Amino acid sequence: MSLALLERHRDTLRHALSDALSRDPEIFRALRYHVGLEDDAGQPDDGMGKMVRPAIVMFIAEELGGSLDRALHAAVGLELVHNFSLIHDDIQDQDRTRRGRATLWTQLGEAQAINAGDLMHAIAISEALRSGPAIAERLLGATEAMIVGQTLDLHFEDRAVDEAEYLHMIDHKTGALLRCAFELGGICAGASEDVICDLRQLGHGIGRAFQIRDDVLGIWGNGDVFGKPQGSDIRRRKKSYPVAVGFSRAESGDRETLERIYAREPVREEDVEWVIRLLERLGVRDSAAEQVRIHLEQAQDAASRIALSERGRNELNALIEFLARRQK
Amino acid sequence: MSLALLERHRDTLRHALSDALSRDPEIFRALRYHVGLEDDAGQPDDGMGKMVRPAIVMFIAEELGGSLDRALHAAVGLELVHNFSLIHDDIQDQDRTRRGRATLWTQLGEAQAINAGDLMHAIAISEALRSGPAIAERLLGATEAMIVGQTLDLHFEDRAVDEAEYLHMIDHKTGALLRCAFELGGICAGASEDVICDLRQLGHGIGRAFQIRDDVLGIWGNGDVFGKPQGSDIRRRKKSYPVAVGFSRAESGDRETLERIYAREPVREEDVEWVIRLLERLGVRDSAAEQVRIHLEQAQDAASRIALSERGRNELNALIEFLARRQK
Repeated sequence: MSLALLERHRDTLRHALSDALSRDPEIFRALRYHVGLEDDAGQPDDGMGKMVRPAIVMFIAEELGGSLDRALHAAVGLELVHNFSLIHDDIQDQDRTRRGRATLWTQLGEAQAINAGDLMHAIAISEALRSGPAIAERLLGATEAMIVGQTLDLHFEDRAVDEAEYLHMIDHKTGALLRCAFELGGICAGASEDVICDLRQLGHGIGRAFQIRDDVLGIWGNGDVFGKPQGSDIRRRKKSYPVAVGFSRAESGDRETLERIYAREPVREEDVEWVIRLLERLGVRDSAAEQVRIHLEQAQDAASRIALSERGRNELNALIEFLARRQK
Repeated sequence: MSLALLERHRDTLRHALSDALSRDPEIFRALRYHVGLEDDAGQPDDGMGKMVRPAIVMFIAEELGGSLDRALHAAVGLELVHNFSLIHDDIQDQDRTRRGRATLWTQLGEAQAINAGDLMHAIAISEALRSGPAIAERLLGATEAMIVGQTLDLHFEDRAVDEAEYLHMIDHKTGALLRCAFELGGICAGASEDVICDLRQLGHGIGRAFQIRDDVLGIWGNGDVFGKPQGSDIRRRKKSYPVAVGFSRAESGDRETLERIYAREPVREEDVEWVIRLLERLGVRDSAAEQVRIHLEQAQDAASRIALSERGRNELNALIEFLARRQK
């Protein structure tokens, strides 16, 4: 699926990303590999993701009449913060592949991958600072929130989690950078505090809807042979939104069984089926769908207060549809 | 030993460090523990190091007529960058203690210690940004250089290293933040480019002299029963300055033996003695002492061009003596 909002500035973003990472020391080659600019032999590659966050920075700045030159550094800084966090996440989770490519720590070892992430973090903020101190300050605030979210997520591996705790975590871990994308676009355009607040709510709504939808797919799949199979997040014992709601709603006997299953590794197939049945019995699937709807409405509400062009409004709606209703 | 330059602003720095790290999320407790503000039970502690770098920022800013309020944020930012790098270094080197306290990864696990370092990195730059974009930009440049130095140092574990490569590495790994301390003080005082350049050379000279002196102590000890024993860096197969010079100077047969010893683990006691004899035969100990002298002269030369007060000049000289001539 091709979305105008993601495509329009993609080449510009790619070049700016390449400029930010084109330096001599050997370690920079690892950074270019990680973001997908080069393959593992140092040859040009097109392994970058959708680059949703920097595309949003550029889109909002353009729509609100800001300078695209200024927005570009903010956008690249944000994308690099996202990527530094992925380098360290992959070490923490011991994930060996990402987007079909070997993760950095499997190539360099953990020690050098920690350095690579640290270097990308510093470069990210340097890049954002080129758009001005207000941009760097906002990005640093979002980065701190994201890291706090990541520490909460790791804590959740060892204990039961309720719905409020899960939402608090995810608002930090994945929500912070998405809200930041909308805010940075607004700051680059010199938007008023009121508009920044609307942009923030827009990002918040999209972020929540996207995450909950993603978590639903991780449990119920999408019936598509190419998509996620049923129960994959349960097999991985991932405490995603539906499970957190399950923990909140389950009565004593069920709750104890649920805790026992999430403490056991590996999870047995009969446990996966039991959890899915429990969640359905507790009405979790319907509640999650309702939450997605509510947050999309809030996002659209916030968007309606922002002075977008006709074209911009259509493109934003297409992005929202894509992020929050995607089937895989 | 008590040094006026290190003592004068120590309480102010301690309070500002505490302010920067006093936030609610659990992970901030780990940050306060790491820098030495609290013990592992969360009680007030005095486990901080000498805080040389932030003391230098304050000293130079004060001497050159800058605002101490502005310098304080720059100083705390620099100290936090240094500390974030220690958190990650301890994971990379698998060191279990630092300054007599358990390192953070032994307390939290490696995954959460990576997060703690990342969070401290972001807070460090936020703090520096409060002193203005020029301060944050300079600190980010030094941080990038430091990380490049750390990647080089890890690479050195697997291969022979010559003198020039070693100096290049150390100018990055430890030199960058020390030079930065002098520069940040100057920037806070609105010093001219020429003065900043002198400050940079002052930091460079002190950094080189300190590092080479430290490396000499790591091989020859200091004859003091409380200091380092002879050969301790050889036992750890650390490729420090004397060994790099040894690699540069050794002729074929000796060089092969040296390479074999540094590839073997553990190093035998007879090898330690052989390496020490080789380095002395190659005149490495004398050359190192000469290098310390040359770099101290360059530092004093640069200092003489900077408009310090009489008291300031004496205090700076006392610090230089302490750093570059210390016996342990």
